[in-house]
This record gives sequence, C-alpha cells and structure tokens, in this order.
Amino acid sequence: MKIKFGSKIYESDEKTSFLNLAKAIGIDVKDLIAAKANDKIFDLLSPVPDTKEIELLDFNNPEGKKVFWHSSAHMLADAVKRLYPDALLGIGPSIDEGFYYDFYNLKVGDNDLKNLEKEMEKIAKENNRFERIASTKSEAEKKLSNEKFKLEILNDLPGEITFYRDGKFEDLCRGPHVVSTGMIKAIKLLKVSGAYWKGDSKREAMTRIYGISFPSKEELEEYLKFLEEKKLHDHKKIGRELELFEFLDISPGSPFMLPKGAIVYNELERLAREFDNKYDYKEVITPLIAKVDLWKISGHFDKYRENMFKVQPFESDEEFGLKPMNCPFHVLIFKSKTRSYRELPLRFADHGVLHRYELEGALDGLLRTRMFQQNDAHSFVSEDQIEDEIIYMLNELKEIYEIFDLKPIFIVATRPDQRIGEDELWDKAENALFNALKRVDYKFTVKEKDGAFYGPKIDVYVLDFTGRPESAYAASTIQVDFNLARRFDAKYIGKDDREHIPVVIHRSILGAFGRFMGIILSNTKGELPLWLSPVQVKILPINDDNKPYAKKIFDKLKENGIRVELDDSNSTLDRKIRDSQLEKVPYVVVIGEKEEKSKTIAIRDRSGKTKYNVNLDEFISDTKEKIEKRAKV
Amino acid sequence: MKIKFGSKIYESDEKTSFLNLAKAIGIDVKDLIAAKANDKIFDLLSPVPDTKEIELLDFNNPEGKKVFWHSSAHMLADAVKRLYPDALLGIGPSIDEGFYYDFYNLKVGDNDLKNLEKEMEKIAKENNRFERIASTKSEAEKKLSNEKFKLEILNDLPGEITFYRDGKFEDLCRGPHVVSTGMIKAIKLLKVSGAYWKGDSKREAMTRIYGISFPSKEELEEYLKFLEEKKLHDHKKIGRELELFEFLDISPGSPFMLPKGAIVYNELERLAREFDNKYDYKEVITPLIAKVDLWKISGHFDKYRENMFKVQPFESDEEFGLKPMNCPFHVLIFKSKTRSYRELPLRFADHGVLHRYELEGALDGLLRTRMFQQNDAHSFVSEDQIEDEIIYMLNELKEIYEIFDLKPIFIVATRPDQRIGEDELWDKAENALFNALKRVDYKFTVKEKDGAFYGPKIDVYVLDFTGRPESAYAASTIQVDFNLARRFDAKYIGKDDREHIPVVIHRSILGAFGRFMGIILSNTKGELPLWLSPVQVKILPINDDNKPYAKKIFDKLKENGIRVELDDSNSTLDRKIRDSQLEKVPYVVVIGEKEEKSKTIAIRDRSGKTKYNVNLDEFISDTKEKIEKRAKV
Repeated sequence: MKIKFGSKIYESDEKTSFLNLAKAIGIDVKDLIAAKANDKIFDLLSPVPDTKEIELLDFNNPEGKKVFWHSSAHMLADAVKRLYPDALLGIGPSIDEGFYYDFYNLKVGDNDLKNLEKEMEKIAKENNRFERIASTKSEAEKKLSNEKFKLEILNDLPGEITFYRDGKFEDLCRGPHVVSTGMIKAIKLLKVSGAYWKGDSKREAMTRIYGISFPSKEELEEYLKFLEEKKLHDHKKIGRELELFEFLDISPGSPFMLPKGAIVYNELERLAREFDNKYDYKEVITPLIAKVDLWKISGHFDKYRENMFKVQPFESDEEFGLKPMNCPFHVLIFKSKTRSYRELPLRFADHGVLHRYELEGALDGLLRTRMFQQNDAHSFVSEDQIEDEIIYMLNELKEIYEIFDLKPIFIVATRPDQRIGEDELWDKAENALFNALKRVDYKFTVKEKDGAFYGPKIDVYVLDFTGRPESAYAASTIQVDFNLARRFDAKYIGKDDREHIPVVIHRSILGAFGRFMGIILSNTKGELPLWLSPVQVKILPINDDNKPYAKKIFDKLKENGIRVELDDSNSTLDRKIRDSQLEKVPYVVVIGEKEEKSKTIAIRDRSGKTKYNVNLDEFISDTKEKIEKRAKV
Repeated sequence: MKIKFGSKIYESDEKTSFLNLAKAIGIDVKDLIAAKANDKIFDLLSPVPDTKEIELLDFNNPEGKKVFWHSSAHMLADAVKRLYPDALLGIGPSIDEGFYYDFYNLKVGDNDLKNLEKEMEKIAKENNRFERIASTKSEAEKKLSNEKFKLEILNDLPGEITFYRDGKFEDLCRGPHVVSTGMIKAIKLLKVSGAYWKGDSKREAMTRIYGISFPSKEELEEYLKFLEEKKLHDHKKIGRELELFEFLDISPGSPFMLPKGAIVYNELERLAREFDNKYDYKEVITPLIAKVDLWKISGHFDKYRENMFKVQPFESDEEFGLKPMNCPFHVLIFKSKTRSYRELPLRFADHGVLHRYELEGALDGLLRTRMFQQNDAHSFVSEDQIEDEIIYMLNELKEIYEIFDLKPIFIVATRPDQRIGEDELWDKAENALFNALKRVDYKFTVKEKDGAFYGPKIDVYVLDFTGRPESAYAASTIQVDFNLARRFDAKYIGKDDREHIPVVIHRSILGAFGRFMGIILSNTKGELPLWLSPVQVKILPINDDNKPYAKKIFDKLKENGIRVELDDSNSTLDRKIRDSQLEKVPYVVVIGEKEEKSKTIAIRDRSGKTKYNVNLDEFISDTKEKIEKRAKV
C-alpha cells in the first residue's frame, strides 16, 4: 500500500487506523488532519480500508483545510449554544476560505464575535476528542427534538445517520473531523450576516456567522494581514471611494463610469488608439447589431448563442443579434472591395461596445461585466506573414506593458484534437508563435492541446497584488484563426494572381478597457500614475485671502491641459489635505500667504513629502512633460 | 366667389369653365395648369362648381406641378406605345420631383431615352387637347382588352370610370390634366429602373421610366444644373467615392465607418470632447441596456416604444430596452449621491451609442440611421439658472459653429396645449430662452405651441447647399425639461436646506456625429478642412530614385502627427495627382530630382495651385498649426 504525504511517498501494509499507520511510518502526527482513500475522506481514527493507496492530509492540503474548517464550525456552534442556549442550529459547512454556521433565534452583532471567539478558544483548550456516533432515525429524532432545522435535515437524509460529539456538544454530521479540538489553535470570526434557511426567501431568516481558523497564531496573523491588504486592493471598493464607477440593478454587469472613472477609461482608450495608430492599425467603427444570418455564418449562433443577446424592435418582427465580438464585421469590411496581397498585413482596430450575457452571480465589478469595449484588432495576413505579424504585435505589447510596468506571463496553447486546417498549417502557425516569442526574447510555457479549434494562440497574464501566478489576470491575447475568413469566403489576390484565403489574427493588448482599469486600480491600490489620475493636481488655499491667487493658479494649470481641482470650501487645511490623500491626488498645491508673496507654490506629493518654493512655470512644464510621456509617477 | 391666383385675389361670380373665368378676370391663361375648388383639383375646361372660393394653379403651385407631371406621364406612355407597340401599360403617377410610368414587355436602356424624349417633344408640338371621356365598365373592358394591367386596375375601380385622350392615345385615368400637350415644353427622361407590379416581388417585373418636365427650356436647364450640383453634394456618393463609410443589408441603418471615415468621425468626437471639457461638462459612460422598469419610469416605454429595441439573452428570460437616449442614466447618476445647490449647474456629457428603430424606407445614409452617437449632454440646474445656462450653451455653440463656418437658424418652440408644469414656470423658461438668445445677439423665430409637453426648446438649423431655409438641416437642440427629474424623484438640497427638483436641460450641439459628418460632407462636397481630412498630405515621388527621400519626408510628417500617405506605386505622376484630387487631399507634395537636390518640397493644394521651393520644416510647422487651430482651410 502506497502512502502519500505532501511530496513524500511511503510503503506499508499495516492494517490499523490511519493515525497509527502514520505513527508507524514515522510521521509527526500532530499536524495531521484527516486521510483520503478510495476518493473518500476519513477521520484519522478510522481503520484503513482495502485500498492500494492512501493520502495523509494536513493543513497544506486543500481537502485537509476543509476538514479543519468544518471542525471549527462545530466549535462555533458549541460556543453559540454555551452562550446563547436558545439559539437553534442550521447548517455549518466549510467554504473556500474558512467556514460559517447558520443559527436561528440568535441576535449577535460584530461586537459579540469577540466573546464567541474566546469561548471557542476555551473549547480548543479543552482538547475534546471528535467522536463519530452512529444512530438510528428514531434515536436521532429524539436527540434533535428541540432543533427543528436539524430535524428537517434529518428527514431528508437517505442512508446512515451519524452524529459527531466533542465534549458535551453533539451535531448531526457526516464528518470527517480532526482528532480533537486542540488542533485548532487560532480562530477569527470575521462577520455576521443574514441568510434564509435553505436560501429560500420565504423561509426563516437565519443569522450567519463567518469565521476562519488556522493551526497556528502566526498563520492567522498572516491571513488577517492578507485580508487587510486585499481590501486595499479591492477595485470595487477603490472605485466606490474614488467615485470612479458604480453598478446599478437596473442593468447588471453594465458599469456606470462616473465623471472621474470616465477620465481614466478614456485615457486608456486614448493610449490604445495612439499605439494602434503608431502600429498602423486602421480604426473602424462597426454596427452593434446584425441580422442573425451574420452570426450563423460566423458560427456564433451555433457555438456562442447562450452568451449572446437578441435584439428586436418592440413593435416589429425584425430580429438581430447584439455583437459579442467585432470580428465578423472586420471580415465584411475586408470583403467590401477586392484585396491584393500588397495590402497585407491589413489591420483593423475597433473599440465597439460588446455585450456578452453572463449570469449575475458570475459578474465581478469591472473584472467581469456584460458590457465592455476592447482594444480589439484583427490582422489579415498571408500564411507566410504570421510570424512577423506576431512579433509586430508583441513589440506593441512590450511598449504598452512598459508604461504600466507590467511583467507579462506568456502561455502558448497548441492544436487541440478537434480542429480545422491541415497539419502543415498548424505546424507553421505554432512555430510562428514559438519563434516570435523567442525572437522577442520572451519566456513562455506551453499548454498542449489548449488552442481553439481554429488555430493556436498566445494568452498573456499579468500578476495581481499577491504576485502569485495562479491568481494572475488574463490580460492580452493573440489568436491565430484559419477559419474565420474561410467561413465568410473572404479572399485576396496573391502575387500569383490567384485567390487566397487570408489568415486572421485576433489581438487585444489591454483586453477590455474597463477590466484593465480594474486590474490597474487593484494593483496600484487606486494610486494611479499621474497621467492616468482623474485629478492630477489639487489646489488648497489656506484661507479666504488666498483664494484669488489659488484661482489664478487653477486657471493656469487648466489652460495647460492639467486636470486640476480647487478646494475653496471652508474646511480646515488639515481636512483638505486628508481629503486629497483619500482621493489619491498625485500633487497637492497649498497656497498660503508665503506662497502668494514669493509667487511660488508648495507641492505635497502622495507620499506626504512637500517641496517648498517651487516655481509655478517649472512645475507646470515638469508636470506636463510627465503627463505627455506617461511617466511612471 | 373669391378667386385666388398666386398671391392675388379676384372676385367674380361668372358661371362658366375655369378657363373662361380666368380669361374673364384678365389672367394670362397660357401658364394655367388646373384649378382647385372644394378641395378637389379640376381640369381647366371643367365648369366651375358651387363654391365660395376657387384657386387657379400654375407651375409655381405644388398641386399645379403634380397635374403638369401627370400629363407628362401620359405623353411618355403615348411615346412608348408609338415606338414600342407591344409594351403594356402599368401605372404612371406624378412624384415629388417629376413622374414615372411603368411598362411591361419593354426593354429600353438609358440610350433609348433620347428617342422617347424626341417622340414626346413631337407629341407636345402636336398640341393635342386632353379630353375627359366618361365610360361604362363594359366599354372600358373592351377598350382595355389588350392591356391586362389596366384591366386589373379597372376591376378594382369602385365608381365612375373615365379615360383621358390626347391625340390617338387614350388612358384609363381620373385626371385632371393640362389643357393640351403643347404646354409641356421641356422634357427630360432621367433613368430606367425595375419595379414589381403593385410592388409585389411575386408579380410581374415592370420597366419604370422616370422623367421630369417644365413649362420652359430654361427651367429644365436650371433643374438639370441643380441635379448635377446635388450629385456633387450627395453625402452618400461622397462617402462611397472617398471610402469613408458603407451600409450593408446585414444591419440596415447602422453605418460601417471605414478607416478614413472613422478618422473624420473620431475627429468630430474629439472636438466635442474638447469643447465639453472646456465648458465643464463631465463626461460619463453609461449602459446601453436597462431593464424595462427604467423605461417605464422615464416614460419612454409608453411614449417611445415603437422606436425602441428590446434586448433579451437568447437563452434566458431577462428583458431589457436598448437605449434610444441617455437622459435616464444621467438622472440616475445625479441621484447616486446627495446633491447640493452648490453643485449646480451640474453637467453630464455622454457619447453613448444610441439605437432608434426606423423603417428601412425612412433611412437616409448618415442623415438618418438606426445607430448613432450624439454629443449629448444634460445640465441639472435650479429654476433661476435656466437663462444663464442657455447663454452658456449658446456660447459653446457659437464657438463650434464658427469652426465650421455654419450660420445657425434659431427657432424657439413654446408651450403646447398639453403640458405639465405651472404657467409661472413656463413663463420663466420661455423668457429665459428669449432673453438668452437676445443677450447672445442671435435672431430667432418662434413656433408657437411647438414645444414638448415637458418644456420649451430651441431648435437650431443649418443651411444645406441650396441655401434655402426650407431644406435646412436640424442640427443642434436645447430643450428645457421640467418633467424628467420629477419622474425619477431626483432632488437637490437648496440654500434653504429643503429639497428641490432640478430642471434638466437636454443639449446637443453637433447632434449625432455621423449625421453632422453627413451634413459637412454634403456642404463641402467632400473637401473637408485640413484638420478634418482623413489624409492631410499625400506624397508623390516622381520616379523610383525619389522614393527614399519621399519616404523620409513621409516619416517626418507622420512623426509630427500629420496624417500622411505615400503613393509609391508605379503610376504616372499625372495619374497620381488625379487620384489625389479625386481623394480631395488638401496638400499634395511632389518629390522630384529638383526637390531632392534643393532639400525643399513642392506643394500643390486642392485648387491646383503649386508652391515651389518650400522649406520642409516650415511646411510642417505651418500645417501643424493649421491642424491644431482647426483652421478653415
């Protein structure tokens, strides 16, 4: 019998409990949580079943964590019952991060959580062993006679009925659990919220308490620090606090860009337009709706319909599809006249508004919306041009990523089993991708068979604030497509005077502008670089006498195209400075008597450093230069 | 009995034919076409019926024109029957400009029209009198036994059956007609096209001949000149020729902006953004779809539904409306936080994509589309701020119109009978509009009772190429709205610490960007000013040796942000220059040996004038300045 534990593998055929087995092969069992065999998780005290392989789970293992947190939920229920004997028990599962337990007839606020935590720590110190108790239905009914919610669950249980007891507390439960409560050394109850019994708004309103626990205080502290950090990086929170955008129920997944958010959004669009123009992409503007016929030719109607919206006049039968992608329109423009090989690569860019239907539950602020605009482009190339064109695209990507100081992670996805196009063409295209990345000196990994049926692709990821590749954002994409032009019968006249089908390369560098904005907001905690800041300079007159001079400076900055605000309210200077800090304004200009006399200004930057006696014209030209160059400050 | 003729009024009670009556009161009858009494049009030879007022119609009168052209259609049918005896007659009505006649079994091309015109002129010289002939159904059937289409019409005729005869030609017709064919002195057959019998694609394919006619050669010549001029101003033709945009059946009314058109479109959007920013409008970006509830609150669902599109996921029941206007979203943003009087006027601008359902027949290139973006804005103001805000808007309008050299025509529409809001408020708002226009020194006319039910408005028109006010384009609009904020219960806190409902002013200066582009294209015949031209400079190397130097100049211009093209094809210089002229490129730079040696350039402008020995750097800085200032060249 093979025994896995972390990255190590042991051998033993001893027939005993998992715990004893672990001891026998010399593992330090104090960190062990549970064991896995035959795709089932067991208590450590269970006997090892007939199997060829078992795995021992500790907190490093996701399934181990789940058991750990489930046991913690029992301890929470125990604590609640001790302090609030009239509360009734609902359910208490582990979740992705921690656990919760639902209670009925329990009124607790955030302040009460501390006491419950203490009670749970007491239970941990008691180090009660978790015991599995098999029961008959009628015994169970007797035990649960005062717990109407548990009785409801019991009634729905089909097979074996078990309870788990630790100390005096007993709960209807399938398990498994840790050996004893002493393992759970660090506990944090995170919040209280409401929930309906069985998620049904017609049933009882329950009180849900969320918590998380760890085998050590250090791990808990690290986690709480991470939570704090995560909050600072929450783009939705930043968006609310900086008044950048909002979402309303009237149109789920369609952002409202408020004035300051629209500035950031438009700056990103302007950047994309500027670079695409430099790289000779020809911007086009295309319809948002098209007859269903188009989507049938493009294949979206067959393969993508569940993500598409149908559009019909309220009072007529005409039927259209709302575009989820721009590509079919670009092929139509390609086809609008006879094309020659001399025109290739022919590149169309498009910032058209796209809509994709997503379930409301899947929406995630700006990161996942129903409505968005991409810095989308399509290159029409001959088969021989693929490699050079990819290099061309990667060069633009490099320039743009440099502006944001983003380190890209490249993943090449190769031919899947189901595909169109001859192997020779796939060879060519895949090699083009590999060679291009090598020639631009980018490292990449390969995901075999993960390409689309119509061609191989490069997906580009950027790290989130954690720096962990596993939670990196998908940002850019470069996809070779042998199929699209073929479906539309789009052709060009080659050097040989014959018709050829162009290869289409789909490309987006920033992805969706809104999504990219969300990524940058998160990664910078809202401290956008100067050029991207909705307010670049804020002017704070110290008192009423300074207001006229402050206004003059305001006007001069505005004339120079600098986004400037004047806070001429009657708040105190301290308050004004604090507000500017909360608004993450890059430069705060304080105007007092001294400044007015010396005709200079004092500039406080985001770090709190202040430069005095700055010449206004120098500040303006310096700031303008930084903005124009999109400097990283 | 009162007798109107043009602007003159006569009196007579003579009971005779209209023609004799006219003679009796001393009118020169040679220009008379028909007469009107009791809302019916009569032949001049008909007896005057019992009535208090008659009107004599000549070619200056639209109803007179219709009779004139209808008689011309008969002459066309006569001519066709003479030259093509086997052709069968369909219908032959007058239209807005001229007439047509449909024939079956007639094969004629544009070249045959000259002969038919000559035949019609012969018929005119014959000066045959138009005679009205009453008939019974069976007589009529006999007469029309060889004319199956006429028989079909006959079968559907309910009452009296009449024919009109001129010379040997006779046609089933209700009339009226001119006295005789001699009146029709100038005829032009314009084109041949196909049409289905009764407009039904399942019925016979007919040959339709279009023509127009006038009482004099001079008028015809003037009209033909006008037609030529009109063609030069046809924005659809210009759009095709300059490759600016196209329309495809796959999405009627949604323009495809081709690369060059998108440049013009984006420049207009940039202009609007720049001015709106200068005038302190805060741009926002809002959803395109919203739940029907929103449109119910806004009132669009009741009053505007037939112009709206419904949006639904293909595979889900959710239902949305596609926005025809931005206003409801701006009220939602206004409502997104507590607003104070200190924030007013609060101005939101929005270039959101709008869709309005129009029948396909009503679409007209860029002038009337289903999909468009406006430089839309809404000001939220207190009642006391209306006048100043209108002045503010008119000032921006003045600046923008100045750029395009547009002369605005202002029409103020006042309170209709059906309206909301107290009379006092209407007084205030109407006076605000009047005073504002006076204070900005703009002349205006008033259209009484033509305001919307929610407030008075100013509509602004600009002249088309004819310079006639009656065909001027509606361009800008400023509409006061007492209703919108009220419907959404949007309020601000006034100086008095109480809640007040803001007045909303809807405003658009350029109107829809695409429509404005259509207007400017038409008015300039496609010769856009430098700053708006998709290609600003075209470089033509004379021969292969000059290509490297030409490329250098190309790069330098591009670096300087000038939109430049290099024609390094192997065409002749003459051909290249002709192409540039057809493309309406403002500056053509010809590079030959001389230029290369002297390191200068030769510049040919659109008028064909060439400047030699121009210093490149001077040309660049001069051109950049013109572009930046949006000079009128």
